[in-house]
Amino acid sequence: MGNEVKLQEALKTIFDADSALYQTRGFQRRIGYGTRPALVNIDLANAWTRPGHAFTCSNCDEIIEATNRVLEPARKLKIPIIFTTTAYAVTEGPNTDMGMWGRKIPCETLKVGSEAVQIDSRLNVQPDEHVIVKKRASAFHGTMLAGLLRSADVDTVIITGTTASACVRNTAEDAIAEGFRPILPRETIGDRIAGAIEWNLFDIDAKFGDVEPVDNVIRYLESLNGAPR
Amino acid sequence: MGNEVKLQEALKTIFDADSALYQTRGFQRRIGYGTRPALVNIDLANAWTRPGHAFTCSNCDEIIEATNRVLEPARKLKIPIIFTTTAYAVTEGPNTDMGMWGRKIPCETLKVGSEAVQIDSRLNVQPDEHVIVKKRASAFHGTMLAGLLRSADVDTVIITGTTASACVRNTAEDAIAEGFRPILPRETIGDRIAGAIEWNLFDIDAKFGDVEPVDNVIRYLESLNGAPR
Amino acid sequence: MGNEVKLQEALKTIFDADSALYQTRGFQRRIGYGTRPALVNIDLANAWTRPGHAFTCSNCDEIIEATNRVLEPARKLKIPIIFTTTAYAVTEGPNTDMGMWGRKIPCETLKVGSEAVQIDSRLNVQPDEHVIVKKRASAFHGTMLAGLLRSADVDTVIITGTTASACVRNTAEDAIAEGFRPILPRETIGDRIAGAIEWNLFDIDAKFGDVEPVDNVIRYLESLNGAPR
Amino acid sequence: MGNEVKLQEALKTIFDADSALYQTRGFQRRIGYGTRPALVNIDLANAWTRPGHAFTCSNCDEIIEATNRVLEPARKLKIPIIFTTTAYAVTEGPNTDMGMWGRKIPCETLKVGSEAVQIDSRLNVQPDEHVIVKKRASAFHGTMLAGLLRSADVDTVIITGTTASACVRNTAEDAIAEGFRPILPRETIGDRIAGAIEWNLFDIDAKFGDVEPVDNVIRYLESLNGAPR
Repeated sequence: MGNEVKLQEALKTIFDADSALYQTRGFQRRIGYGTRPALVNIDLANAWTRPGHAFTCSNCDEIIEATNRVLEPARKLKIPIIFTTTAYAVTEGPNTDMGMWGRKIPCETLKVGSEAVQIDSRLNVQPDEHVIVKKRASAFHGTMLAGLLRSADVDTVIITGTTASACVRNTAEDAIAEGFRPILPRETIGDRIAGAIEWNLFDIDAKFGDVEPVDNVIRYLESLNGAPR
Repeated sequence: MGNEVKLQEALKTIFDADSALYQTRGFQRRIGYGTRPALVNIDLANAWTRPGHAFTCSNCDEIIEATNRVLEPARKLKIPIIFTTTAYAVTEGPNTDMGMWGRKIPCETLKVGSEAVQIDSRLNVQPDEHVIVKKRASAFHGTMLAGLLRSADVDTVIITGTTASACVRNTAEDAIAEGFRPILPRETIGDRIAGAIEWNLFDIDAKFGDVEPVDNVIRYLESLNGAPR
Repeated sequence: MGNEVKLQEALKTIFDADSALYQTRGFQRRIGYGTRPALVNIDLANAWTRPGHAFTCSNCDEIIEATNRVLEPARKLKIPIIFTTTAYAVTEGPNTDMGMWGRKIPCETLKVGSEAVQIDSRLNVQPDEHVIVKKRASAFHGTMLAGLLRSADVDTVIITGTTASACVRNTAEDAIAEGFRPILPRETIGDRIAGAIEWNLFDIDAKFGDVEPVDNVIRYLESLNGAPR
Repeated sequence: MGNEVKLQEALKTIFDADSALYQTRGFQRRIGYGTRPALVNIDLANAWTRPGHAFTCSNCDEIIEATNRVLEPARKLKIPIIFTTTAYAVTEGPNTDMGMWGRKIPCETLKVGSEAVQIDSRLNVQPDEHVIVKKRASAFHGTMLAGLLRSADVDTVIITGTTASACVRNTAEDAIAEGFRPILPRETIGDRIAGAIEWNLFDIDAKFGDVEPVDNVIRYLESLNGAPR
């Protein structure tokens, strides 16, 4: 039996036990959808979505496809759509904008202006959609995202992208901390190491946001069509 | 074979494979110790450390003991020592300070002023040590922690406490984002569900901070004794 | 002619000229009232509102009375009501929570738990109203205020209190930056030095929030009575 | 007697009286220089420094010259040098990144990529110097500045630029709140309306940072030359 299959079986066993404890204790509640969503797509740039980079993730074709399925009704609704990328202007010396993060992960491969940090062209970023260049894991940290969402009267943040074990998770944690409802369409979330998606989505769903099938999220967005905000 | 043993075996297999990929890709670097540490103890209050609460964690006697071993040299050095607890003043109605978090986890059991949210008496909080009442997972979110640490010229944040899958992890993520070096003494970190400590410390060590044996952290603190800051 | 009269005349002359320039350039726009207000009362604690303190302000009886006039319809509406005070737990040594601020102003007179930092009893703080202990000028900096307001779906922040030249102004600046509409009832704002109220409210009204007669703010709140949020 | 002269006389009279009160009360302390400075130049972009814009300030030739005098020793020391500009990607519709600020001031004239928001060429921005595009008044709000400065182990923030009554002041307020020592070289600070520089620098010097003659700041930087950090 392959390691991946063994891991999935072990994870299922453990998630079942953990969920039983969480349910008894009052965790894993549903935060629910609000009425004024925004769509925040985390680090779906070439360094994560295309082969050959330090940050390359698995199954990105499927993730891009699922994200495009969410983008379609979001664009019809004209809700705020934000893409993030992670990129650095100064990758050497004491004045680097990598901060301490370059001491843990290969930030130095993510240069401002390079092809690697451009949003994947298959997502067709539109002129009225925001591309936020962040320096840290969370899309909220050191960016104007919270102010942008609040000004636009948003109450629900749909989060897609990569990676489950860093930027997506940290963005979900900050989103609920800031007072928004985080919703994560499961099929749109990626990572590069085995087990990371499962474990991190389990933690997120237990404590920080609702992990939902992508079809549910699409139905939710379609249900808002024409509704007064 | 028990589920816990099966999980640990499966996790070891997967962590070995994941580490191999991470090492090739340039992740799992060592951030290293700085020269001006602070000690931040996350949610070692009765609701987490004593039996009978929704938030009760496992193995808290050992975690308290290990934390006390770190506190001893930290107190001799007179470095900044901070304890956090999570507590809410208004747990009903629209004006609650639980924000959206009460919609995911049982925040309503953590009342300001209750015995449950007091720091565990075995840790002997001293008058010049700070107790920060936070409302969210991260000790930095909506608190004066970053300002306090920067003013005290801190460069390294030693993080202990509970839980690995929420408040400890989110604090480590924010600590590195703010520009500090997060160091986590492994034996001082707790959680309430199986696998959560292992998986979250794996992710943290790969991307956000150095997970170290508690003996190493103690040796580091002792080595600073008498050193000029 | 007294200095105060001379100042007021000089300020009027200059404000007229400045307003003419601002109007030509497109500043001094009206941000307007939203539909979901909260009331944030800045530092109306004894150290500011009663005689004999380093922080004592002028005309506090009138400011308290005007603030009580705003509190009345706000309490009927059951909108979020927040009071702030500024207080420090450790006022000596390197681990102080005064941060750098104690190097500019007499923070050391504001001890946590002292009568000085209690909200003025004439304002009758109610159990479901929040008292936030802040460490810095802005009510948003290092506090859970932004998260609280966002979670409560607030879009408008009515700001009263002291002082115009520090905490009130900095709170208004942060409120608009976070995406809220700041509204300042003129008669509820205090300070301790001549000219400070006039100049700071002029700057705020030009760039950060609407300074309004208190009667207008009361009428606005009364107009919401019974309205669906 | 011209209005400007009358204002300056009235301001001098009032500042003398206010300073007397502040000195008695323990305000107007000196925060002092630290040992690890950074230089942050606020909004010295063409929309502020050149004629013909809504944001055009007075006396910008002198301000640029004074700022260049500070830049010279800063560049020799290789301390972190940051320039900010304020610019918006979407200036119409609900998804604008102007947030609420466009409802008070003419943000819509500051388009990302336009000549107006480029840093004034007379300042010769170098490749290892950061240009931060901010959306709000403070250089810290919604930007990576605090994380950048802390990672570079900075303790002192020298602030130049425009305007005294908004972005410079709000940046100084946030700098001290974050735990840095704000130092403002008086001759490098600009504004567009009469009295605004005097009044705001008076408030800043009383409560938020040290306003210093530019010659003192230059001497300070030169004194660090060759010093170990």
